[in-house]
Amino acid sequence: MLAADRKMALGVFARANGHHEGAWRLPESPTGPELDFHGFWLGLAHLAESACFDLFFLADVDGLRGSEADLAALSHDPARYVSQFEPMTLLAALAVTTRHIGLAGTASTTYNEPYHVARKFASIDHLSGGRSAWNIVTSSVQATAANFGKDKHLAHDARYRQAHEFVAVVKGLWDSYEDDAFLRDKASGLFFDTSKLHYLNHRGEHLAVKGPLNLARPPQGHPVLIQAGASEPGKALAAEVADIIFGSSGSLQGAQAFYADVKARAAQHGRHPDHVKVLPGLFTVVGRTRQEAQEKNARLLSLVHPEVGFSLLEELLGVSLRGYPVDGPLPDELPPSNQQKALRDRLVETAKREKLTIRQLYTRQIGSHGVYTMTGSPTDIADEMEQWFCEGAADGFNIMASDYPGGFADFVHLVVPELRRRGLVRTEYRGRTLREHMGLPRPEHPARASGPAP
Amino acid sequence: MLAADRKMALGVFARANGHHEGAWRLPESPTGPELDFHGFWLGLAHLAESACFDLFFLADVDGLRGSEADLAALSHDPARYVSQFEPMTLLAALAVTTRHIGLAGTASTTYNEPYHVARKFASIDHLSGGRSAWNIVTSSVQATAANFGKDKHLAHDARYRQAHEFVAVVKGLWDSYEDDAFLRDKASGLFFDTSKLHYLNHRGEHLAVKGPLNLARPPQGHPVLIQAGASEPGKALAAEVADIIFGSSGSLQGAQAFYADVKARAAQHGRHPDHVKVLPGLFTVVGRTRQEAQEKNARLLSLVHPEVGFSLLEELLGVSLRGYPVDGPLPDELPPSNQQKALRDRLVETAKREKLTIRQLYTRQIGSHGVYTMTGSPTDIADEMEQWFCEGAADGFNIMASDYPGGFADFVHLVVPELRRRGLVRTEYRGRTLREHMGLPRPEHPARASGPAP
Repeated sequence: MLAADRKMALGVFARANGHHEGAWRLPESPTGPELDFHGFWLGLAHLAESACFDLFFLADVDGLRGSEADLAALSHDPARYVSQFEPMTLLAALAVTTRHIGLAGTASTTYNEPYHVARKFASIDHLSGGRSAWNIVTSSVQATAANFGKDKHLAHDARYRQAHEFVAVVKGLWDSYEDDAFLRDKASGLFFDTSKLHYLNHRGEHLAVKGPLNLARPPQGHPVLIQAGASEPGKALAAEVADIIFGSSGSLQGAQAFYADVKARAAQHGRHPDHVKVLPGLFTVVGRTRQEAQEKNARLLSLVHPEVGFSLLEELLGVSLRGYPVDGPLPDELPPSNQQKALRDRLVETAKREKLTIRQLYTRQIGSHGVYTMTGSPTDIADEMEQWFCEGAADGFNIMASDYPGGFADFVHLVVPELRRRGLVRTEYRGRTLREHMGLPRPEHPARASGPAP
Repeated sequence: MLAADRKMALGVFARANGHHEGAWRLPESPTGPELDFHGFWLGLAHLAESACFDLFFLADVDGLRGSEADLAALSHDPARYVSQFEPMTLLAALAVTTRHIGLAGTASTTYNEPYHVARKFASIDHLSGGRSAWNIVTSSVQATAANFGKDKHLAHDARYRQAHEFVAVVKGLWDSYEDDAFLRDKASGLFFDTSKLHYLNHRGEHLAVKGPLNLARPPQGHPVLIQAGASEPGKALAAEVADIIFGSSGSLQGAQAFYADVKARAAQHGRHPDHVKVLPGLFTVVGRTRQEAQEKNARLLSLVHPEVGFSLLEELLGVSLRGYPVDGPLPDELPPSNQQKALRDRLVETAKREKLTIRQLYTRQIGSHGVYTMTGSPTDIADEMEQWFCEGAADGFNIMASDYPGGFADFVHLVVPELRRRGLVRTEYRGRTLREHMGLPRPEHPARASGPAP
């Protein structure tokens, strides 16, 4: 596992106005980067490519992250999806203007049709020459349901049962044509070999999809699959299907346990543990010195509007806290909610153990949203990353910079050189496709894997 | 109407392997252009921009255009959507690599969610600086239904009733934010003005969508709306909502009647007739001389595989013709079908009037699919276009070249200079957005049009 040539994988979790809720208000941050493709997004992707990042990742919500009752917070926090490019269109634009980096988008299995999802990710795989990745989510934001004719969200377990079926359908659609189906033979007039076209004819518990997909098999066979669920059903889905798992954990020990758990589960599915890459989210505030980083962090915190902090905590817990004093503790008994269970349980436990007030608890979540935070010098951050990478907690990291492009440029220009000096990261791209960059196998077409097509 | 400065609008109906079913087999045609962005698609868009085309248009089907029974034809005809980029991803890629041309994509109101449609077209409008257009279709291809869990297609009238509601929802979502909602005020921390955010709260016969859309109002206010329906409900929808109508007619007289009809209907909706642009599809086979064009047409016809012609006719009529002799007439009574009624009725009428065999009828449809065909020299084609434009049949044309890029390059290099000599087309772009190019008004936000927001 610790082979000499093992290298960290690096993703950038791109977000126009930064991961820190105060980031957009920094004097050095651009104004209105979210809708500036050439000035902001393309520059960010090229910056990541200059440091050989494997992955450029976009999260997504099909709505604002908050309800009408949250307007005060929404209007002070652009990171809550108040206005941004639709991710598949943004990734398609990046597909033809970048050369190496993987392009990962988020799409929900709850509010999409599998035919559309299969088509879009396959199309971006073709546009980019094999660099597409799908972050599979089941949608945890309540406000989304009402944009799709639903009065309320499906329950957590039901969403995951449907997700398993949805992913199987999408993979089946990607296999509609075999890799060598297209002859394009001008002499005979035969464009494709009909024996290499497969109808899916899926009829399952939630979905009925006949197929085939109207697109050649993607260059990667299947675009890379990503899952981020830390809940039980999330881990089960990830271990079964994900090539990359975005873990999130507040501690090295927690990350080690998660890493061991999902690798073992993957092995139970007959998968090679090296073919499941665990990339914890890593929130970074970088300075040339530790003191500079801490000063930047303080500067960022001072720019967070009070409406934002209170509302953030309510969203993470999935319950209203209005009426409780901001300088008092969480209520003893929280009503049940439909939010990401693992994160909620961890927050409640931390607050009780450390006797935090509501204000103290939300202040900790600002920016990081509960993922591991590294605030420090390049050496500080490289030390921790090396430890996580070498001690069974990570195969790489999904970098969440405090602010973009500045904070991410600091990571690229200060931390990456330190990681390179230590031989922990690659200095050139290994191949052409995202699977090649990350050492992930290309799925063979089922008709080839099991002999001639039926 | 015939003002001296009135100019033709020009669109290019782009299709990788040509509109003529024999095009892909021409020796001079590229092999595999459909998935070649940099080599084919971008070059085609730049070619259209070099001639000041207003619009780059992609048709679409969410499936193959044909069923399992059609495999023989499908495998000989790449134009039947057997493998191509998903159109919104392709248009997004073109949005950031072109500068002027409008980018029109097709999306069905039957198999999409209005929230997704509103988001994607708005996103491309932002990516392109105001050049996005939505071709509204209700899906007329039977094979599509089975890719979306439906056993059969909705009936024609029901699809159009839903389309009216769907379009109203999409327009409402585009108006979620007023144009000046985003303050991005770093000093106060206020990112947007909550009084300029509007929840749609739509609950109608077919759809329930709360909103708001998570994206600033598009640069064009609303992306340009296109409709192509020639049926009664299609014309009714077009006259009510479309900025551009893709008419299709087999004759000047038919086109004049269509033009007068939809302009009058638009006026009944209180719309200015100049704000509804009628662009008939125009299938072109261009030669330096008339003889060269006719020779090219013969060469193209000789390359059509027999499986393709027979199947094409079955698809246009929506019924099986297997068992009927190819050199005999159409059966007297065709069973009812769910296909585009106007086109079907016109075909049946033509076949009866001219006593055509099945083979003769499908040979006429090859390439043109029933739209008006001009095969000739640059002067021939410019003469006819001028007549249509000046005699109340067209505000411009949606050019369907026999083959791409060659046949379209012939149009650009031979016909456009002739149109320019006659002062019929523009020689530079008038503005920045597609609405500005075409003289279409920018929709005012309803909250501004009717005084302060509620």
